Amino acid sequence: MRVALLAARRLVVFLKNRPSFCETNHQVHHWCSKVTSELSKSFPSLPVMTDIEEILSPLRAEVQVQGDIVRQLKANKASDGEIKRAVTVLKAKKRALDEKVEIELRSKDDNFDRSKLEDLLKQKFFYDQSFSIYGGVQGLYDFGPTGCAIKANILSAWRQFFVLEEQLLEVDCSVLTPESVLKASGHVDRFTDYMVKDTVSGECFRVDHLIEAALEIKLAAKDTKPEEKVEINRILAQLDNYGAAEFSSIIEKYNIKSPNTKNDLTPPQQFNLMFSTLIGPTGQCRGYLRPETAQGIFVNFQRLLQFNQGRLPFGAAQIGPAFRNEISPRAGVIRVREFTMAEIEYFVDPNDKRHPKFSQYAELPLNLLTACDQMDGKSARKITLGEAVSQGVIANETLGYFMARIFLFLYMIGVDVKKFRFRQHMKNEMAHYACDCWDAECRTSYGWVECVGCADRSCYDLTQHTKATGARLVAERPLAAPVINPTVFLNLLVLKPGVSSLSLLSLEATRKLKTELEASGDILPRLFVSFTVDEIVPSVIEPSFGIGRIMYAILEHNFKIRENDQQRTFLSLPPVIAPYKCSVLPLSSHPDFAPFVPAQLTRVGISHRVDESGGSIGRRYARTDQIAIPYGITVDFDTVNQSPPSATLRERDTMKQIRLEDLPDLVSDLVNGVVSWTDALLNYPIFEQQESGK
Amino acid sequence: MRVALLAARRLVVFLKNRPSFCETNHQVHHWCSKVTSELSKSFPSLPVMTDIEEILSPLRAEVQVQGDIVRQLKANKASDGEIKRAVTVLKAKKRALDEKVEIELRSKDDNFDRSKLEDLLKQKFFYDQSFSIYGGVQGLYDFGPTGCAIKANILSAWRQFFVLEEQLLEVDCSVLTPESVLKASGHVDRFTDYMVKDTVSGECFRVDHLIEAALEIKLAAKDTKPEEKVEINRILAQLDNYGAAEFSSIIEKYNIKSPNTKNDLTPPQQFNLMFSTLIGPTGQCRGYLRPETAQGIFVNFQRLLQFNQGRLPFGAAQIGPAFRNEISPRAGVIRVREFTMAEIEYFVDPNDKRHPKFSQYAELPLNLLTACDQMDGKSARKITLGEAVSQGVIANETLGYFMARIFLFLYMIGVDVKKFRFRQHMKNEMAHYACDCWDAECRTSYGWVECVGCADRSCYDLTQHTKATGARLVAERPLAAPVINPTVFLNLLVLKPGVSSLSLLSLEATRKLKTELEASGDILPRLFVSFTVDEIVPSVIEPSFGIGRIMYAILEHNFKIRENDQQRTFLSLPPVIAPYKCSVLPLSSHPDFAPFVPAQLTRVGISHRVDESGGSIGRRYARTDQIAIPYGITVDFDTVNQSPPSATLRERDTMKQIRLEDLPDLVSDLVNGVVSWTDALLNYPIFEQQESGK
Repeated sequence: MRVALLAARRLVVFLKNRPSFCETNHQVHHWCSKVTSELSKSFPSLPVMTDIEEILSPLRAEVQVQGDIVRQLKANKASDGEIKRAVTVLKAKKRALDEKVEIELRSKDDNFDRSKLEDLLKQKFFYDQSFSIYGGVQGLYDFGPTGCAIKANILSAWRQFFVLEEQLLEVDCSVLTPESVLKASGHVDRFTDYMVKDTVSGECFRVDHLIEAALEIKLAAKDTKPEEKVEINRILAQLDNYGAAEFSSIIEKYNIKSPNTKNDLTPPQQFNLMFSTLIGPTGQCRGYLRPETAQGIFVNFQRLLQFNQGRLPFGAAQIGPAFRNEISPRAGVIRVREFTMAEIEYFVDPNDKRHPKFSQYAELPLNLLTACDQMDGKSARKITLGEAVSQGVIANETLGYFMARIFLFLYMIGVDVKKFRFRQHMKNEMAHYACDCWDAECRTSYGWVECVGCADRSCYDLTQHTKATGARLVAERPLAAPVINPTVFLNLLVLKPGVSSLSLLSLEATRKLKTELEASGDILPRLFVSFTVDEIVPSVIEPSFGIGRIMYAILEHNFKIRENDQQRTFLSLPPVIAPYKCSVLPLSSHPDFAPFVPAQLTRVGISHRVDESGGSIGRRYARTDQIAIPYGITVDFDTVNQSPPSATLRERDTMKQIRLEDLPDLVSDLVNGVVSWTDALLNYPIFEQQESGK
Repeated sequence: MRVALLAARRLVVFLKNRPSFCETNHQVHHWCSKVTSELSKSFPSLPVMTDIEEILSPLRAEVQVQGDIVRQLKANKASDGEIKRAVTVLKAKKRALDEKVEIELRSKDDNFDRSKLEDLLKQKFFYDQSFSIYGGVQGLYDFGPTGCAIKANILSAWRQFFVLEEQLLEVDCSVLTPESVLKASGHVDRFTDYMVKDTVSGECFRVDHLIEAALEIKLAAKDTKPEEKVEINRILAQLDNYGAAEFSSIIEKYNIKSPNTKNDLTPPQQFNLMFSTLIGPTGQCRGYLRPETAQGIFVNFQRLLQFNQGRLPFGAAQIGPAFRNEISPRAGVIRVREFTMAEIEYFVDPNDKRHPKFSQYAELPLNLLTACDQMDGKSARKITLGEAVSQGVIANETLGYFMARIFLFLYMIGVDVKKFRFRQHMKNEMAHYACDCWDAECRTSYGWVECVGCADRSCYDLTQHTKATGARLVAERPLAAPVINPTVFLNLLVLKPGVSSLSLLSLEATRKLKTELEASGDILPRLFVSFTVDEIVPSVIEPSFGIGRIMYAILEHNFKIRENDQQRTFLSLPPVIAPYKCSVLPLSSHPDFAPFVPAQLTRVGISHRVDESGGSIGRRYARTDQIAIPYGITVDFDTVNQSPPSATLRERDTMKQIRLEDLPDLVSDLVNGVVSWTDALLNYPIFEQQESGK
């Protein structure tokens, strides 16, 4: 029996598209290899649009010419002012191109109707505005049973795909954070946006969004002259770089008013996006709700390094809520005040950023929009990970490895590859500490949305916390041979009064001591011969996932309408994240129908939802399709009257049905990817019935 | 093959103690039945202490006599003042008894050394103070990889045990909550503690804790006279009922000072325990971090009822962080400022609180400490759930059903039954809206700790939110036959101008309309004949879990020391919540040892930890025991050199080892409860080796 069980386990059939996690990780591992190998043959790159390309080519050419000018200026070491002006023009041209691309893409994607999706999400309580019986609060959303289950499934998949497979050290740190920590990380001083207020109503607006909206209208107006349009495009491209003075003058020049009331606006002022509170009763300890989970990992660096027995590289991970007090939240769940993040901080030797598993994905093709290509006005293009790293497009193997993992994860949970790209940050948009940064972007009806950021943060954060606290946030690296080098760490006892062990001294203190001893003519120089351990501040590679945004992108990418019925919308989510795996639909509310199926499903661990309402079976299928349930069991009169009982099983996307006896086991196998629906159709009798019938 | 797989699945062998969840819920279901039936035969009630009982019996008698006096006074309808005085004396006597019990129990449990456990938890980073490189913040803790994994496993088990098995609607609501919501719930006005400050240093103290500590010292002092002791006990018993004036006079009378500085104290003042912040940039929307997750469910009641197709009963659940700005946090993770809760709000018809699955657990015995027994000075006693409900000890079936589920859940994840009881709130300690409330308490070195509360909150919360917003937070109940009754809800169209449908009117508005129409001599009274739906405000049964407290109790209950070696501490956590399921210990760091086992474990979904450090195998086993890893695989020279490779597998609690080839599959079966360790010992050759050896 045991042998049979093991053999059966090995009889793994893959679902056509994506794996599930419930049974084992076996499938996932195979699936990753399979996807890598299949995609390397035929990659579904961003839609080829030869017709659109004709429209875009003049704009592309303009961007490229301007890109060349910028490069030439840099090569000639032109003045900063000259380069800055040229970059501004470049950005304006790039922006015009991007917009054209958006417009053309959107017309290609006509059949998506966001209001229909939003109706569905609200009606089936995927999520909705928080506290709406109290009038609601902007930027706060509650997830209902369906949305909450999808979110929990995404997080569970994430934990298995990253924490378990990459052996990450998962932590769970405090949300409340004292001011000193966020002062050191730079958030207290720099985590701000500019805002203006309506002078009468007091309504607040994020000034860049306000100007953008006002100038977009002007840009679209018929009576705006071509030279004005050029000027406006120049301003729009620059918005990120402006301060209070520039915003003020734009508001004045274009006579921008409060959008709804047409009242005047206050001068722009900086607004910190963190929620502030007081910790403890004294009123003396200011704290903030964390704006990201990362800092919790950095301040625990020493404990985590010790947990990893002092060795590099290692990664830590954290899933949890983060908070940003957006001035004027918008775009549904994409820009909100409270959201769930899943972050990885992977600590590596700054001199060796290779990754042992990189070769597994070297053949994996990705849609990359590089910084250079952006300067040249080009679109994202297919390039294998191996090429990207060897050509220096992606800075190092570890960064590239995580980009591959991010892509595979998103693909697995339902992101459409044709609406996905990695966009590299341009040098001037990158945070000053990062040496390379890529955003995993999904195309939605809101445009390209950053869903995951993947940055090499270098040693910035650890260094900042060391400066603020004096704590030695460093790792030790054994040296091959002892060296005489004042930049290495002293690992010896010295009998100088008051210093029992030099190994407890920082590098700086060691140097100071050395200088002192040398000055005093002491014997120390000889001791330096035996330095054997190097002290390094690790670099940090950070993949940072916005769970709400990912979920929204997946909902859009999987929102569908039945070909023959515009009213029948449904969600084709992969089983791994579907909120319920199976529906149970008894044809009658007679008590005889009750005992069938549900308890057995619970016993095999399959989440399910019973719909006992009196509607026609077709209407009930439509309802379960709307909440993305992949499989449905109908308990009919034959189920109740025949022995052994059988029932029908229907699959959501194909709408095909089969009839069989061992239902819970087959559903479990289907959901867990042990059996594919195609195989099930071959092995069991097809059941034919009109869905619209009673 | 398929038949074999199914048969194999049914070949479920239970782990001796507790089930795991990874494979299916099948085991859990069986396990619950089995536990119920086994415990009904022999229940490990709280330790029988005949020797202690001798010491306690005079104190018990005193409590009982006083309890009788209180009952007599109540029966005779004595004045409130008289009853209150008698209750105060009763509480003082009860308190003296409780303390004696604590002291005696503690001496019974001598071998537990909290500092040893704390050392372990800190050293292995289960959890530790947050931001300690910045000096730390009281009442905030970070969970490290081990603690985080245990917590995640507890939550995952909770989700399966409650959300899946009870078909609860899980939601995920905002932490940020506007003031209006918490005003309605009573938290803005009443969620407070009294505090005093050191007049010089400004240090704050919770006044009841401060007085308690000061009087405890006085109580223990040799020169305190007996009559003073009686007085102090009277005060201590009353602390919960005191206000600012009483606290002031006690501080004055006993000359209580700031504990560390001996400075004077400020007068007591009320301090609200919620963290306050401002939502949005206007500074006009005050909000709080939620102090419990429950309110998020109540304000979504209408959406949830609709999701459940309008039917009662149904339950909603939420897991998430909650925040309380404790004045002076203490007792480690038991009283903290930020914590994870898991709450269920189960909505039932107030006139029918039966539960369909109650009979499953009618035979389950529980350790109950009833309000009456507390008045009589008795200890908790064994009583079956069926008896407790039929005798009216537990108010209703639904409350009782959830108490059974709470108990089984805690038992399954590692709570020691002998250190567990349900304590009923006494009438005067219960919140004014609750009609019955039981605390699931675990005995720890901090005394009895409330880990789960289980209350019947009646219709308080929904009524409050209806009052505040006008939203109709009610359910409809079909009536058997149409009735003429002004308290039922009108479900008819009426052609009165301006009112299109009476079904949208509240009961109150309907009544008003009826009065109006009757006064105007209209025809309405006839229409009332067809009222067919009753409008009810559901009662709420609320099981509320404090995850951090549960985790701490389990850590204490499972902290052990090897009999022959006081230095070897370990944690015997059940596999279902163990942070890693398996360790992998290569005997050599030679690269030949690397490829064995870990990848295969990942593929069967078993979380594991590799320990490649150079320590002796005995020392490495000890290390993995400390982080509660139930199984350990040792890769030795035979593994590397023989074909097919075999390795040894060791179990944590028995420390016994076997040698075999198919390791990952057996570990998976053991962890998932498909095979028991006892069976494994019978089926594979025992491997004998001294753990202390190299």
